[in-house]
Amino acid sequence: MTSLRHNGAETGGPRDAYLDAARACILDLGWRRTTLTEVARRAGVSRMTIYRTWSDMRQLLADLMTREWTEVVVAAEADDEDSPGRTVVERLVDKLVRTVKVLRGNELFVRIVELDPELILPYLLDRRGRSQQLILELVEQALRDAQASGDVRAGDPAAMARGLVLSAHGFVLSAHTMVDDDVSEEALEAEMRVVLTRTLQP
Amino acid sequence: MTSLRHNGAETGGPRDAYLDAARACILDLGWRRTTLTEVARRAGVSRMTIYRTWSDMRQLLADLMTREWTEVVVAAEADDEDSPGRTVVERLVDKLVRTVKVLRGNELFVRIVELDPELILPYLLDRRGRSQQLILELVEQALRDAQASGDVRAGDPAAMARGLVLSAHGFVLSAHTMVDDDVSEEALEAEMRVVLTRTLQP
Repeated sequence: MTSLRHNGAETGGPRDAYLDAARACILDLGWRRTTLTEVARRAGVSRMTIYRTWSDMRQLLADLMTREWTEVVVAAEADDEDSPGRTVVERLVDKLVRTVKVLRGNELFVRIVELDPELILPYLLDRRGRSQQLILELVEQALRDAQASGDVRAGDPAAMARGLVLSAHGFVLSAHTMVDDDVSEEALEAEMRVVLTRTLQP
Repeated sequence: MTSLRHNGAETGGPRDAYLDAARACILDLGWRRTTLTEVARRAGVSRMTIYRTWSDMRQLLADLMTREWTEVVVAAEADDEDSPGRTVVERLVDKLVRTVKVLRGNELFVRIVELDPELILPYLLDRRGRSQQLILELVEQALRDAQASGDVRAGDPAAMARGLVLSAHGFVLSAHTMVDDDVSEEALEAEMRVVLTRTLQP
């Protein structure tokens, strides 16, 4: 994680160190058993210091998730620059598939899904979170650029971005429930590529 | 619902009447506050009669959800016969979009999502439910038939069916979180049609 830290929007400083401590707690104990007191203990600061930044664990978690998923998305963007020689659509699809895979394998995400899956429900059922909003904006901008050069089909880039992100939701959360002796993880990833590629092509 | 009841796999008889009573309880009170005792009271039978069929509310709910979603899927299949004159892909996409919309608007589904959303988590994160399995089988068979006539692209129909269903997950659960002043429900539905149509075309 540390190597990506410099890409984040709000980084460095004590706030980031407190989030690191909270992240370590959640990986060890799960979210439900992590308290602000425990975060303070791990960070080696007073409880009041933590309370001045977050009034409860729910607010801290929202900030931690935003930082973590933002890093995932920014890393997926960055990698892309290293692999030229593909079409615009291929690069966009690679980026989306990579984001889905990295998110699915992210240790904080895996831990939350294992121990406290109800924490993700608000972001599925009630409202978009900050990182979902960031992803939408990045995808929409990428679509707008690619449409300008004629590399991606016409259409409202905002609606297209939301359709793409909704199509990807199932692959992030539930792909493993669709893998068994009949269909491999690779076959399912290939299907995701087909869905995304065909959706984007002019 | 009653008009669709004759399409279900296991219908009629007292078991169905108990599920009707449970359904009414859950719509009124939510799942968490519905007990087998309350279901028995509504059905006008003894508590022991209900306990002989289900040992707890979780088992009853699994049977109720299976019955309900099976009806949704069977109804989407049935409607299709009334609208000829479209291509095979158009008919398949119509069927999938209709299933997504009816499921999203189903009163039992809406009530569960409102009051007890954690009940759907196992079917997203752990394993396929019986109705998810039924949907996969129906889609796979439809793809197999359409491939035989050359109307749908080649590929493993099992993997394709799972990819399509995963692509649809987000549109069932989270489409409303992607609708606002910038993107209408209609625009998002149009995007879902593009995704599905392009994914299926030869």
